[in-house]
Formats: sequence, C-alpha cells, structure tokens
Amino acid sequence: MLEKIRPRAEDRKRLKEAAGAILARIEGLSRERGHNFKALLVGSAARSTWLAGDHDLDIFIAVPDGSDLKDALALARLVAPVHQEKYAEHAYIHAIVDGFDVDLVPCYQVENASCLRSAVDRTPFHTQYISSRIAGLEDHVLLLKQFMKGVGVYGSELRTGGFSGYLSEILVLRYGSFLGVLEAASGWRPGETIDLEGRGAQAHNEPLVVVDPVDPYRNVAAALTLDKMFEFVAASRCYLARPELEMFFSMGEKPLTDQEIIGRMRERGSHMLLVEFKAPDVVEDVLFPQLRKAEESAHAMLDRHGFRALRSDVYRASGLAGMLFELEVAELPTVSKRVGPPAWEGEHLSRFLSAHIQKLSGPYMEGGHAVVEVRRKYTMARDLLDKEITSLALGKHIAVQIKAGYRIYYDIEILEVKDPEFRTFLAGYFKARQKLC
Amino acid sequence: MLEKIRPRAEDRKRLKEAAGAILARIEGLSRERGHNFKALLVGSAARSTWLAGDHDLDIFIAVPDGSDLKDALALARLVAPVHQEKYAEHAYIHAIVDGFDVDLVPCYQVENASCLRSAVDRTPFHTQYISSRIAGLEDHVLLLKQFMKGVGVYGSELRTGGFSGYLSEILVLRYGSFLGVLEAASGWRPGETIDLEGRGAQAHNEPLVVVDPVDPYRNVAAALTLDKMFEFVAASRCYLARPELEMFFSMGEKPLTDQEIIGRMRERGSHMLLVEFKAPDVVEDVLFPQLRKAEESAHAMLDRHGFRALRSDVYRASGLAGMLFELEVAELPTVSKRVGPPAWEGEHLSRFLSAHIQKLSGPYMEGGHAVVEVRRKYTMARDLLDKEITSLALGKHIAVQIKAGYRIYYDIEILEVKDPEFRTFLAGYFKARQKLC
Repeated sequence: MLEKIRPRAEDRKRLKEAAGAILARIEGLSRERGHNFKALLVGSAARSTWLAGDHDLDIFIAVPDGSDLKDALALARLVAPVHQEKYAEHAYIHAIVDGFDVDLVPCYQVENASCLRSAVDRTPFHTQYISSRIAGLEDHVLLLKQFMKGVGVYGSELRTGGFSGYLSEILVLRYGSFLGVLEAASGWRPGETIDLEGRGAQAHNEPLVVVDPVDPYRNVAAALTLDKMFEFVAASRCYLARPELEMFFSMGEKPLTDQEIIGRMRERGSHMLLVEFKAPDVVEDVLFPQLRKAEESAHAMLDRHGFRALRSDVYRASGLAGMLFELEVAELPTVSKRVGPPAWEGEHLSRFLSAHIQKLSGPYMEGGHAVVEVRRKYTMARDLLDKEITSLALGKHIAVQIKAGYRIYYDIEILEVKDPEFRTFLAGYFKARQKLC
Repeated sequence: MLEKIRPRAEDRKRLKEAAGAILARIEGLSRERGHNFKALLVGSAARSTWLAGDHDLDIFIAVPDGSDLKDALALARLVAPVHQEKYAEHAYIHAIVDGFDVDLVPCYQVENASCLRSAVDRTPFHTQYISSRIAGLEDHVLLLKQFMKGVGVYGSELRTGGFSGYLSEILVLRYGSFLGVLEAASGWRPGETIDLEGRGAQAHNEPLVVVDPVDPYRNVAAALTLDKMFEFVAASRCYLARPELEMFFSMGEKPLTDQEIIGRMRERGSHMLLVEFKAPDVVEDVLFPQLRKAEESAHAMLDRHGFRALRSDVYRASGLAGMLFELEVAELPTVSKRVGPPAWEGEHLSRFLSAHIQKLSGPYMEGGHAVVEVRRKYTMARDLLDKEITSLALGKHIAVQIKAGYRIYYDIEILEVKDPEFRTFLAGYFKARQKLC
C-alpha cells in the first residue's frame, strides 16, 4: 500500500526543487521592490505528508505589519504571469508551474495564531506545529489520508464536510499510528474531544472537537459533519475486523444506461422528481451549501404538503446543477384534513370555521379540535414544486438561476437527461453504499 | 318546542297508572312469598323529566340485607311473563307492558350511596336527590335533553360517550335553566369541575368532572368523551349566537345510492377500505368498545406501514359489523427505508447490518444512524389488512367473528354492500357534519 501512496524519491526531489525555485523568486522580487515579505511553503508538501500523485504547492507570501496584502498579490502575479485570480477571504493566485498546482496566498505575519488578521494567517503555524513533531509518522499520515479518501470522508470543503489534512495529522500525533487512530475512532461517540496541548479554551458543540494546538479557541474539526464522522467510525470498525486493501480505494461509479435507470426505478417503485437549472458560476464551497439549503426547503415543502420524500440529493454536472427527490408518494387525494384550534378557544374556533365555509366534510370534533376536510391545493408533487419553487428559501445564487429558468423531470422523463456526469451521480444515488460495520 | 317534547296530561296519567300497577304487583307478590322487597320507580319517569314519545319505565326491586337478588329476579319473571333476560353487572328483565318498555332491575337496599353492593344500587339515590330538587325546572331538563339529542351528544352508553339524563339534570340544578347551562358550557375548558354539594372526595382526570351528589367519589361525567363534551360546548355557542329550532333535531341521513357513493368517492379521491364480518351477538355497550379497539389496532398498523388513514369509523348494520378506513395512500413503493441504531452503538449496528444483507440500497449514514433501503413486505394496504388482521389486538368477540370469516371491500367494491343501514352510515360518514360554532 505504502509503495503506492508514498511519493518516490525523484518526485520528492522535483517538488523540493520546484518549491525552492518559487520561494527564491518571491523573496528575490520582494527585495528588489524594497518589501520585507517572507515566502513560506505550507500544507502537506511542507510536512512531507502528501500523497503520491498530488501535485499541490501551497505557498504563502507573508507581509509584515504596516504592509498591504495587495502588494503581495501584485508580486505573486509577477511570479506566475499565467494564472487565475481566486478569492477566499482575500484574493490569491492559482497557477500551474512545472506541472504543479501552485497557490500563491498573501497573508499577514503575526506573532502567534491567536492574533490573526486573516483566517489564512493561521496556516503557517499549523505547518510549523506539525513539521516539528511528525518526523517518523509520515507514513501513518499517508495511510490515514488514503483510507479516508477510500471511504469517502476526506476533505474539509463544505461539499464533503469531512476530515482535513491537518486534522488527520493531529489524529496521528494523538494516537501514534494509523491503526491507533482507527482503534480509537471505533469507540468515538458524539462530543468526543481531543486536546493535544490540554489548553482548550472554549466549549464547542460539534460532534467531534479537536482543539487547535496553535489556537485554543478553534475546533479543527468544526467542518466535520456528524455523518462523515461516523462513516469514518464505522469504516474503521470494518477495517479492524477485516483489513482489506480495497477499503483504501473509493468505488468508482459508471454512468447508468437508459435500461439500468429503468431497471432501478422499476425495482424501487418510487417516484423521481428532478429540478435542473444552470449552475451559478461560483466555487463549490459557495455552490453546495446553497444547493443543500434549496434541497432542504423543497424537501420540507413536499413533506408539509404530504408528499413524503424517501431521500434527496444535489449535484452539479456539466454546467448544470440540480436537486433530486425520491418520493414515496407523488400523488394525493383531493380531500385533505385541516385541524383547527382547540374547541375551548371560542374566538379562534369561530375564525377557523368562517375561514372554511367551502368544505367537503365537517366540521367535526376530533381530539378536542374542530376539523374540516377541504380540497387540497396540489394533488401532484410535480405541480407543487413547479408552482412554488420560486417562493422557497433558496440560496442567493440558486434563486437567480431558478428565476432565469429551470426544468422539472418526473419519473421516466429523467431518461431525457443524457449527461454522463449526471448519470454517474444517479448510479451513486441508487447504490448509496458506504463501508460501514 | 316545549309543546312537542312535554308529555301530554293523558300520557302522564297513563304512565302513572302503568307504573303504579307494576309497583303494586311486585309488592303484592313480595308479600305473598314472604319477602320484604321494595319496588321503586326510578329514572326520568320518576322525576317527571321524560321526553314525550319516550315510553321507558325503570323499576327497581330492592332486596334487604340477607336476601338474594335471584329471588327478586324470579319475582320479576312472574310480573312480566313475556320478557327478555338481560345482563349488565347482574341479570335483569326487559318486557313490554301496556306499551311501555319496562326494565325490572333487582338491586340491594343500602343505607346510603357510598356503601353500594352493586352499581345499580346507586340509582334510587339519584332519583331521590333529583326528585326532591327539580320541581319547577322539569321543562328546562326536557329542553336540555332534546337539545343534546339534536346535536348528537345525548346518551352515556359506550357507543355514544355523551351526557346521561342524570348528568343533564344536575347541570340544570347547577345553572338554573336551559339557557344557563348553554351559557356556562360555552366557556368550559377541559378539566371543568362541578360539585353541587361541595364534597368532591377524589381527583379525576376526565375532561368534565361532575361530583355525584350522592357519592362524592364518583364522577357522573366519567363516560363523557372529550369530543362529545366539546361538541356540546360548540353547539351551545351556535344556539346562543342564533337560536334555531332545528338544532333540537338531528339531521337524519338517507341511504346513499350507487351514483351518490361514486360521486363522493370521486370528489374525495381517497381510497376506501372496508372490513365486514358477522356482528357478535352482544349488546352495544360490549360491541362498540371492541369495534373501536379493533379499529384503533388496524389504524395503527396501517400507519406503521406507511398507509396513512384520513379517518376511520365502525358500524353495525343488519347483523353485520365492520370497520371503514379512508386512506390517503393505499399503495406504496417497493423500496422502504429502515433506520438502524446510532452508529456509536457498535454491537447494535453490527447486528442491524447483518440482519439486512438483502437490500436495495445502503447502508449509509443519516443523522448518525445507519440506514438501509429494503423491499417493503406489503405495498398494498389491502394486502396488509387481509394478511395481518387476525394478528391484531381485537376485542374478544370481534376476534372470534373475524377468525370465522370476514370480507374486505376496496374502493369501488364497496358498492357491493347494498344494505341500507350501511349506506345510511356511509352518508353520515361522508358528511361528518356537526353543529359547531
């Protein structure tokens, strides 16, 4: 396993040279222009904990107090003349240099990690903390990261909500080895707390609390969701019970054919409702939280109207984005029960009754409440979604796109969506299989 | 109104004569046979609070300490040679005498109502209590009883769960008039307590608590259900807002024709599921609680399997009895979600996963629980009911009848049930209209 994931000596050499050249170039330019910027290699490349095949270089340009981040950005542009400008809390530069994906990130030089001026200022302290302690444990970090990738819990972006590289390194420091982490994780419960330096300074209510050794107020695992945490826990149990190499590799899905989709739908007998629209041009960390929010609003609305969803999911595929709802019930009877106030609240009752003169049955008393049976506004889930989607609480960018246009596919109509990325998503949706024990 | 419901002078005279003759006959026979039994006219006939058209005579044969109720029963058989024997807590005799429905009920002579030997021993005390106080208020009692009949809340049998005659009399004593009762009732809340003699000796948690003036441990309104109580409350408000004579008369329903049934079903769009079986040969006070119990069990089972019932009801018609369920959803997809234990309970999780090797999707993590999607055992409500009805908690007599045979009618098949009593029940079911304000 390690042979597969440990970078070869020549790769290490290439990375070291490429990074060295960029760092030298930055500091040279800084001197030329009279700045006192420091160039820092951070991230897994700096800690010797990157996986073979990764070609990421995170290089920070730290400006002293009184200097402007804009000057560091201008300098970065010169270092990599062909680049993209990206934006997190501040602007940074992404470029391909000598086959490496290089991020050039301006930050402030600060005394220690508790007097940050920007979120990225903490990163150099992380690198320093890990680099000075990880020696001899690098292989364990590589195994843990690859295992987390294999079981689908690696990556702290908002789309995944999983474990960050830094978090996996802290776990190895805490438990001493790859297997040590898995054994400990097997017994985790929600609220598990890890505090390497014993200086946790604040209560957190996330499912896993890992006090940042360089910032006692921060939970390193703040972005980890309950489900990703316990997918890791349950996968750890699987591996310990029966260590299999295939756990390190995620099961890739292939796009489903028309026949396969028809087969799955027939087997399940449920109803598929898909809303598709143009994906807004934003990064995943912006897009996915908004998609999830839209999904939740629509899911709740369907539920409120009696259309129970078995499951739902969101995707982005080839410039489009969408939400998929799998319904237990897609059609409901006309008659619908409306439960009024308790009968001892005379004024409320009387208002309720006057508001429901038009009725199919009732009023009658049930459990001390007056009840009427009226005509349901939407008997088809499809119509409900179509008519009410724009009135939902959608994220800002999603709302714009949906106002501009969307399309609904119902049941077998989803065969009209031919895009292989969508059909791969659909394959994963139907299988929904995780490595749990 | 009063002219309609107040017995005419000649009716009073006939009743007085008929009752007097029976009482004399009992006491004569008692003397002849060396007993010391007392004959007592009880109930509304004794209190001058019976409604015109009622022809009920309740006559008690009270035996002194040391005597046997069986001797009183033997004597009753002689008084009415053509009779039916009935059974409540003890046996009694029902007969038609001179056009009156006469109940001859053996009871014990007791000192006061708190040292009863049988539940019926209390009745003579009730009659004594009301008779000595009701003079001048009889018409108010008549109006209240007729109003309660008109709005469907009169009768304390278990089928109705409404107001007894004795309860209506106490209400008139408490509030002084028919309208006084309605005005007070308009403001009732659950837990309303009435204690004429101020000697309530026990806490009750029924919705209406009326301390029995002759037995401070007993709640006269114990059989009144929350719904019947508030049907009366809401009807009282209607009458006070707009006094209409028609409130005194219940809206009779006519049997529905095939076309009418089809019309109602089309209008509602719901699914009807009817189970019919031979009615056990027991009195309503035994039958209806058992029918309600069976209805609840079946309703809960349908719900548990995802078949939501909008409403359900039970009936007895022409020797048959049945339960009607109106379903929002009568058919569900094959796929069904099974939620396992929390993922941090390792042993439970592992048992859950081994028990669900056969699955359509999963396992996956949701809200910290492992979830699998499996094949549903019953996708049709009809099949579920048909296969599982005998395993339900049914009342004793219902269970016997259902084991002997039952028939299920689904949707339009209910047209096959031609019995006019059933179709009248169905008319009331669809309308489900009560007089509420």
